[in-house]
Amino acid sequence: MLQGLVTQEKLVILITRAVLAELREQKRLIPVGVSARHLHISREHLDILYGPGYQLRPLRPLMAGEFAAEEVVTLVGPNLRTIENVRILGPERKQTQVELARTDAFRLGIDPPVRQSGDLGGSPGLVVVGPKGAVVLKEGAIIANRHIHMTPQDAYLLGLKDNDYVDVQALGERGAILHQVQVRVHPKFRTEMHIDTDDANAVGLRCGDRVKILIQGSDT
Amino acid sequence: MLQGLVTQEKLVILITRAVLAELREQKRLIPVGVSARHLHISREHLDILYGPGYQLRPLRPLMAGEFAAEEVVTLVGPNLRTIENVRILGPERKQTQVELARTDAFRLGIDPPVRQSGDLGGSPGLVVVGPKGAVVLKEGAIIANRHIHMTPQDAYLLGLKDNDYVDVQALGERGAILHQVQVRVHPKFRTEMHIDTDDANAVGLRCGDRVKILIQGSDT
Repeated sequence: MLQGLVTQEKLVILITRAVLAELREQKRLIPVGVSARHLHISREHLDILYGPGYQLRPLRPLMAGEFAAEEVVTLVGPNLRTIENVRILGPERKQTQVELARTDAFRLGIDPPVRQSGDLGGSPGLVVVGPKGAVVLKEGAIIANRHIHMTPQDAYLLGLKDNDYVDVQALGERGAILHQVQVRVHPKFRTEMHIDTDDANAVGLRCGDRVKILIQGSDT
Repeated sequence: MLQGLVTQEKLVILITRAVLAELREQKRLIPVGVSARHLHISREHLDILYGPGYQLRPLRPLMAGEFAAEEVVTLVGPNLRTIENVRILGPERKQTQVELARTDAFRLGIDPPVRQSGDLGGSPGLVVVGPKGAVVLKEGAIIANRHIHMTPQDAYLLGLKDNDYVDVQALGERGAILHQVQVRVHPKFRTEMHIDTDDANAVGLRCGDRVKILIQGSDT
């Protein structure tokens, strides 16, 4: 018998490896969150749009202490076309940041760069209108890059670290492998891929669907 | 010398193979055409929308004798929301067919299937409005599948035939490999990939950009 040739110690190592490989395989399947257009807002701008000292009312909790707020705004592009009912995410941030899909940007007549959250230098502006006032943003409109929020535990199992880039595969009749997906690792995150509505509609994904991380170089 | 071991006949075969491989490599790079929402219309429906016997006026020629017409319609979904300025493609077809992106379908409150052109059975309807009347379609709204029009010569060089499915890669900061791309081969076609605005906006493609055909199984 083959087992006769393997010491107990070696067996433990083999089993551990098999279990780790299986765990890793499972960890590669992660849920998707689809981000519709939204904005993060500074305290100063919230004062103007909703009134001095106004407190955002949480509608739905997101990860890492953020939330979708009850409050919405209307965006007006330099072409004077509008998008209504754009939701504010709380809590307030240092800079106001409007995250759009390319489809939204065409409607508003602006050409935002693909950026990670917070990187707003040189991005186009637009007008944000609230019930108490309007703000003319000089910059702040971006198309969020494809990214995955990941727990340190999952990142460890997958051999990934913060700011790595991976490919991600969605199956189905509109399936695709999405390149250039940034991995963000933080203890406050739960593991979830965030894509915008253009990506979601193109590849047929909805919130909660699962996609597969293709570790760099090993799958494609 | 190595050449001393190769007969002239073998050299010709080797050179031919190298040239064919290079040609094939070049043929894999094909231009993209982005299809915005549009409709094909039956003679009967054109009579209702634009008047009996109305002749579409060609605005811009497309491939295989088709053309974008000057004429547009307004679409109204079952939710009573509208999309204006939807262009008619001519000439008339046997069935009226409305091709939407998923983004458009959300706006109109319908859920069209992903289909190849002409395959309309069980697809949702909507209301089409023209300057002379309106048509209530019982079915006809689809999301066109990703497809490549290809000349028989290009198909031969690439080892592809009509109705094959391939993967296609777009590079860039929103790059992706699109699965499930149908190949259509016909002598009247010129080789071009057709995708809708959701795919184009998701992966950062514009009309005339080049993408690469990844032959089935060999690249991914």
